[in-house]
Amino acid sequence: MSDALNPDACMDWGRDARTGLPEAVYAKGKTDAQLAQILTAARSLSRPVLLTRLAPDQVERLPDVLRGGLDYEPVSRTGLFGPVPACAGEPDIAVVAAGLADMPVVGEAVRTLAFCGVGARVIADVGVAGLWRLMDRLEEIRRARIVIAVAGMEGALFSVLAGLIQAPIIAVPTSVGQGVSEGGTVALHSALASCAPGLVVVNIDNGFGAAQAALRMRALTSGVQAGT
Amino acid sequence: MSDALNPDACMDWGRDARTGLPEAVYAKGKTDAQLAQILTAARSLSRPVLLTRLAPDQVERLPDVLRGGLDYEPVSRTGLFGPVPACAGEPDIAVVAAGLADMPVVGEAVRTLAFCGVGARVIADVGVAGLWRLMDRLEEIRRARIVIAVAGMEGALFSVLAGLIQAPIIAVPTSVGQGVSEGGTVALHSALASCAPGLVVVNIDNGFGAAQAALRMRALTSGVQAGT
Amino acid sequence: MSDALNPDACMDWGRDARTGLPEAVYAKGKTDAQLAQILTAARSLSRPVLLTRLAPDQVERLPDVLRGGLDYEPVSRTGLFGPVPACAGEPDIAVVAAGLADMPVVGEAVRTLAFCGVGARVIADVGVAGLWRLMDRLEEIRRARIVIAVAGMEGALFSVLAGLIQAPIIAVPTSVGQGVSEGGTVALHSALASCAPGLVVVNIDNGFGAAQAALRMRALTSGVQAGT
Amino acid sequence: MSDALNPDACMDWGRDARTGLPEAVYAKGKTDAQLAQILTAARSLSRPVLLTRLAPDQVERLPDVLRGGLDYEPVSRTGLFGPVPACAGEPDIAVVAAGLADMPVVGEAVRTLAFCGVGARVIADVGVAGLWRLMDRLEEIRRARIVIAVAGMEGALFSVLAGLIQAPIIAVPTSVGQGVSEGGTVALHSALASCAPGLVVVNIDNGFGAAQAALRMRALTSGVQAGT
Amino acid sequence: MSDALNPDACMDWGRDARTGLPEAVYAKGKTDAQLAQILTAARSLSRPVLLTRLAPDQVERLPDVLRGGLDYEPVSRTGLFGPVPACAGEPDIAVVAAGLADMPVVGEAVRTLAFCGVGARVIADVGVAGLWRLMDRLEEIRRARIVIAVAGMEGALFSVLAGLIQAPIIAVPTSVGQGVSEGGTVALHSALASCAPGLVVVNIDNGFGAAQAALRMRALTSGVQAGT
Amino acid sequence: MSDALNPDACMDWGRDARTGLPEAVYAKGKTDAQLAQILTAARSLSRPVLLTRLAPDQVERLPDVLRGGLDYEPVSRTGLFGPVPACAGEPDIAVVAAGLADMPVVGEAVRTLAFCGVGARVIADVGVAGLWRLMDRLEEIRRARIVIAVAGMEGALFSVLAGLIQAPIIAVPTSVGQGVSEGGTVALHSALASCAPGLVVVNIDNGFGAAQAALRMRALTSGVQAGT
Amino acid sequence: MSDALNPDACMDWGRDARTGLPEAVYAKGKTDAQLAQILTAARSLSRPVLLTRLAPDQVERLPDVLRGGLDYEPVSRTGLFGPVPACAGEPDIAVVAAGLADMPVVGEAVRTLAFCGVGARVIADVGVAGLWRLMDRLEEIRRARIVIAVAGMEGALFSVLAGLIQAPIIAVPTSVGQGVSEGGTVALHSALASCAPGLVVVNIDNGFGAAQAALRMRALTSGVQAGT
Amino acid sequence: MSDALNPDACMDWGRDARTGLPEAVYAKGKTDAQLAQILTAARSLSRPVLLTRLAPDQVERLPDVLRGGLDYEPVSRTGLFGPVPACAGEPDIAVVAAGLADMPVVGEAVRTLAFCGVGARVIADVGVAGLWRLMDRLEEIRRARIVIAVAGMEGALFSVLAGLIQAPIIAVPTSVGQGVSEGGTVALHSALASCAPGLVVVNIDNGFGAAQAALRMRALTSGVQAGT
Repeated sequence: MSDALNPDACMDWGRDARTGLPEAVYAKGKTDAQLAQILTAARSLSRPVLLTRLAPDQVERLPDVLRGGLDYEPVSRTGLFGPVPACAGEPDIAVVAAGLADMPVVGEAVRTLAFCGVGARVIADVGVAGLWRLMDRLEEIRRARIVIAVAGMEGALFSVLAGLIQAPIIAVPTSVGQGVSEGGTVALHSALASCAPGLVVVNIDNGFGAAQAALRMRALTSGVQAGT
Repeated sequence: MSDALNPDACMDWGRDARTGLPEAVYAKGKTDAQLAQILTAARSLSRPVLLTRLAPDQVERLPDVLRGGLDYEPVSRTGLFGPVPACAGEPDIAVVAAGLADMPVVGEAVRTLAFCGVGARVIADVGVAGLWRLMDRLEEIRRARIVIAVAGMEGALFSVLAGLIQAPIIAVPTSVGQGVSEGGTVALHSALASCAPGLVVVNIDNGFGAAQAALRMRALTSGVQAGT
Repeated sequence: MSDALNPDACMDWGRDARTGLPEAVYAKGKTDAQLAQILTAARSLSRPVLLTRLAPDQVERLPDVLRGGLDYEPVSRTGLFGPVPACAGEPDIAVVAAGLADMPVVGEAVRTLAFCGVGARVIADVGVAGLWRLMDRLEEIRRARIVIAVAGMEGALFSVLAGLIQAPIIAVPTSVGQGVSEGGTVALHSALASCAPGLVVVNIDNGFGAAQAALRMRALTSGVQAGT
Repeated sequence: MSDALNPDACMDWGRDARTGLPEAVYAKGKTDAQLAQILTAARSLSRPVLLTRLAPDQVERLPDVLRGGLDYEPVSRTGLFGPVPACAGEPDIAVVAAGLADMPVVGEAVRTLAFCGVGARVIADVGVAGLWRLMDRLEEIRRARIVIAVAGMEGALFSVLAGLIQAPIIAVPTSVGQGVSEGGTVALHSALASCAPGLVVVNIDNGFGAAQAALRMRALTSGVQAGT
Repeated sequence: MSDALNPDACMDWGRDARTGLPEAVYAKGKTDAQLAQILTAARSLSRPVLLTRLAPDQVERLPDVLRGGLDYEPVSRTGLFGPVPACAGEPDIAVVAAGLADMPVVGEAVRTLAFCGVGARVIADVGVAGLWRLMDRLEEIRRARIVIAVAGMEGALFSVLAGLIQAPIIAVPTSVGQGVSEGGTVALHSALASCAPGLVVVNIDNGFGAAQAALRMRALTSGVQAGT
Repeated sequence: MSDALNPDACMDWGRDARTGLPEAVYAKGKTDAQLAQILTAARSLSRPVLLTRLAPDQVERLPDVLRGGLDYEPVSRTGLFGPVPACAGEPDIAVVAAGLADMPVVGEAVRTLAFCGVGARVIADVGVAGLWRLMDRLEEIRRARIVIAVAGMEGALFSVLAGLIQAPIIAVPTSVGQGVSEGGTVALHSALASCAPGLVVVNIDNGFGAAQAALRMRALTSGVQAGT
Repeated sequence: MSDALNPDACMDWGRDARTGLPEAVYAKGKTDAQLAQILTAARSLSRPVLLTRLAPDQVERLPDVLRGGLDYEPVSRTGLFGPVPACAGEPDIAVVAAGLADMPVVGEAVRTLAFCGVGARVIADVGVAGLWRLMDRLEEIRRARIVIAVAGMEGALFSVLAGLIQAPIIAVPTSVGQGVSEGGTVALHSALASCAPGLVVVNIDNGFGAAQAALRMRALTSGVQAGT
Repeated sequence: MSDALNPDACMDWGRDARTGLPEAVYAKGKTDAQLAQILTAARSLSRPVLLTRLAPDQVERLPDVLRGGLDYEPVSRTGLFGPVPACAGEPDIAVVAAGLADMPVVGEAVRTLAFCGVGARVIADVGVAGLWRLMDRLEEIRRARIVIAVAGMEGALFSVLAGLIQAPIIAVPTSVGQGVSEGGTVALHSALASCAPGLVVVNIDNGFGAAQAALRMRALTSGVQAGT
């Protein structure tokens, strides 16, 4: 019975062709054996894999031969495995964050983009309680073609920013908060209820999803394919 | 048994002396007979009464002799009954509202202050989706000693404003909104979770409570007593 | 006091230049006088206005001279006022809906796009309980550069569709449902929690917001400006 | 007083005769002494017992003589104690799972069936983000007389699958998810709100309950009694 | 544009062959024109249609020629249109209800079964506050091969009944209740959390879904096909 | 089929003997025919019936012969039908209410007691915002053997009162409130979370249930049987 | 500043005289120093103290001289300190529990009663999934003058039991459960929404409060004072 | 990439001039490196910093040179760093707390005030279950110009206190509680729904925010600037 209850992962290696987005692995809750099986398969197919929510102790327990091929970044808990394209040119995506505690989510977005060879400019700690911090960097943000905004607590950054720029803007609420905002629901609802026009939203702490959405949008620009 | 189930109101006529705030009547859910009994008692005692959440049809059903003594304002659904002091001097309270749909709540606050002889400056339709609207009137707001901020939807106005001014600021979330923000919970939570320092909050749509809190604070200013 | 409690709207006529999106008016909760004031101002400035959540009886109570200039569509409860550009060429936006009860939200999105001169292809009644209905029209959907997906109940359409196409996809959960799905929260959460990559979400029933987001994205395509 | 506060379990050994389903023990929260008492009683009565939510350290602390008679499986956290019938013939129940993280719940269902001598076919990692994974195995699923579907996150698998097959289908939402879907409520609500006809649902992570329901249904097939 | 925003329904006439369950129409929220279009199409195809949540005034506004072919029942708000098979033999499904206020939901289930030619025995007003009422009819319930249990408020009927019978049992929580149980969530959660084994659940007030599930199960009995 | 879907009520006429509490009828949601059937049966059995949540228009639609035997009180929406015992002696139950808007719930409790020949003293409008109102009547309250406390909004009355008296105290939260307290959940939770010892709670607005609980307790006093 | 932030407890030693219930200490969250200060004060006043939610490690860290005077019971996490009256005579309170996992809450109630010299009969593991378990012990339960019912999960025990007995019945929902019933909210709501008459409810897991309520009720019996 | 994902904090050193409130650092979730960077910057600028939610182990890991300049208080988890003004004169702010478990929140408020050179009087353990405890200290509370009230569980203290005093009163609900009140939501809602006039509220456990609000109010008193 153990075989049936410990099946191999059924990787969607064809996702790239179908949706323009490469396959990624959500590492949380996967067993060590499953992670090793996936990475071994990827290597034999010469395909890159992005691992998200990958805990440091999961990395440590990987076989040496696999861990050696893994580029792990602890703030974002992401691992890039295999041949990853270099980021070239000036970044045309900006990731704007309200506070330092949002950096793990910022990192997940930035690393997901990097996995696809797309660079991003990080503009951190510009929450609206001190509005001048955001205003000081507004021109820098306006140069981006697509903006990912990351904020927890009451998420006021989303509305203010969306009222100031023309680019598509993806809100990522984070679980940073206390009392009523613990877990991120307040920031999520603020983003959804925003009075500013044309803001779109992903799940709480979902830096990966925001990056994927940005890649879909980026493919709209002339002559660019998603994930390239 | 009908007497026991239709008792007279037990008015707290001494509240003024105890808390510095005059007695008010929440009209919603009161019977016509109860409203008439309260107003008749107030007149015989020569005491003013503030009525909140007073529906137009409740006003119409009042006996002529009572309705004649009532100053009713329909946007705010408030009635001032009896001798009300005049507002004198430059208003030192500002009521700042994000949208036109918030005006009933603004009105309840303004009328409660007027009932106590305190004037207020209304600054309406300055939601942060168009930040310039707020910035254009910032100096006017900064002249106030106490600020009441009124907003529904995602309530981003609260955080932005609290980061820009020094005065005490009372947030009144409103039930204006749709989808996740229907009923006002998102605006309420945004105010409570605000990253801006020293913001205080009252219940959804509670313009009356905000005015009462402002009156308590105003009494701190030298030589001024609450409600005078 | 009535002037302070019945202020004029503070229209953000400059929004177009700042965010690439024209000003719109959320009619629900606005008084007849406020609507008339806004439309009169718009006409004197020769600017178009989009009205959303506009009830038929609000239209009927408009002065004749204003109502004559209004293009009202009852399913979507939208009104286009003033000079609206014609839609030209093949639509590059698809609006995909799970059921007929979702048509008011579909309509709000389509009309918002039309207000900006942008056409859209509607693909209705393709919920996944009968998967063949979606599959039959998949090629048609894949021809769109941007997809707006509209669904209530359990919102399974979002995940299935996002796994099948490459274009940016904006989920609009609707309040269509009963029991646990009444009000649209289940569809909203399904969209946010989707296991499909790169799906973005707007508030429940927010067809207007989805269209605005689509216009931001559309401006990314070479040589196209938002709202033109 | 300690006797009153540490009572023996009151096992429902007659449940089998009354409902066709054997007695099971939910091990979580039971003391070591209570577990030992139950197993000892079962052995003296020569009755099998199924233990669910049984932690590895609970197993380790069992007396040797009892642990020796226990067939423990760690993924599903289940223990089969005593004489268990062999599974015979081709399985006529399919357990279909969206992701690898759902395997503990799949396991609880499969082991509960095995405890009653009923085999099951596991079809794992067929979430609808890559619809082909499900379609590739659809014929295999259609051969089952009863289907248990297991999914977390947004639970879109339930609706898609229910629209494709004729057999009774029992949805088991799992607590696999993050952000809004943490804890399994979104998957639960998606199953309940499904637009697909005739889907039935059990509690979050309740693989045991799903198996029990399948056994009740299986007894409807000609000449088969529940639990045999 | 009106054509795009008023599309024809895309009926799933093949559902019968695919899932063994005939197509039904959820009438709430459909326009009169859509209902007429669906019924006209059904008649031209000589196919029966079940309409649920059909309000009396919707029936009255149907064209005479269609209304004449409609068998409408007001308690359940259901309409049977077209050639419906007769129910034959002793009913093998029991619908057990806690209170009289649950009858609309009972009716929806019974009528859905009748639409497929399947009879049902109704056992009403047997809530567990007076346990003897249920016990008096237990043997009658035990004769059924499948049981649908309908209850609102705290839903204690579900657990008691599931502990007493062997047949598959489908719980339908209803929105009957007040205070904490208003809307049906308490009954729903009671059903899901039941300590009784093998209970399955459908959405609040979803008599239609319960009947569909019962039809799937009934097809398991030897030589019987779903819907026949 | 109409017979099955319009069954007669199954009255629990034996409840009195079993629980010491007479049968009552929750009128909301019952059809006119069902109410008439119940009252007719009661009259033929010479048994009294208490009707709760009975709307004035339901009373008007009763046959004259039944309406004539009904003692209807509109504030509490209760009807006493048939031979009701007289209340004798000094009331030993006090019903204490925070505000006038709570009177319908107070009435439901008082009338339920009266139906059983038990008198009650009503002490109304003693909410704790003006603590003197409660203190003024404390001795009167302390004379009662059992206290029913009725309050909406934040329900602070429950804790204050329970800390001041020795008698059993039953909290009835009411749906009186606005914003966060709309619907009564805040008052309910305040009662449950009270730091005062030995407070018990019934459902929101459940004056009937509170009276029933008081009757159970009253039967504890020497030589008194519940309901007599 | 440390003195102000580490104040002594302000014990309500007069509670006994005022409410008939002795003072108790909720140990969770109290510092070791605070516990020691309270017990030392109690000893010097020769007053008994009941400690609830007292963790074993808190007991271990008490000074020997205090720990020696403490009667600690680990299942219920309660400590009796100082002179406690003996329980005499046949217990007239029954504590009825659905499952073994509810025993900590049962214990808290039983020990609180014992602290006041009141005995209780424990009837455990009689959940309604196997109704015979409850029926077998019904006569024993009916001999009690007051009943405390303890149940988690869906709490069906409350309704069934309240329909079978005449005595006052206090429901204590417990946090025992999983999925939707995790934390005890479902059991709480089931108790509040019960269709059985005269059931009263305390907070989740609040065995202490249930016992206090029972003591208030017990004082109603002839010649008995609360707490004696 | 590590630089972008580990940015320096963007301190709002100008907040003091803009809002009258000095900059503070929420330490939870900050890395050791970020804390050290902030304190080093503050020292080089000779500016004081308040650290809140600072864990003991974070303090221990600070470099010696920084830790030496830190005044850390463990109950409140606050650190004062750098030159802090002395508190002078009689305190004009009172911090009133319901129970001992609320002291960490009391401490956060008191220490925030101390950081600004403002003293406060602490009045602890005066919950309303024993009303005399509050009444005994009422005159002391009435001497304060501003009152901060701190309570968990059902938060009845807020309403009682607000009805007894004239000063501005800021409610801080705490997460102290169990069952329905776990996490502080009940206390929060009680404060918001209070029937007492002019109560204002901050987020759960937000002693820092309450102090900031008190500082804003205190600046209203003649000749006093916030933070001095």
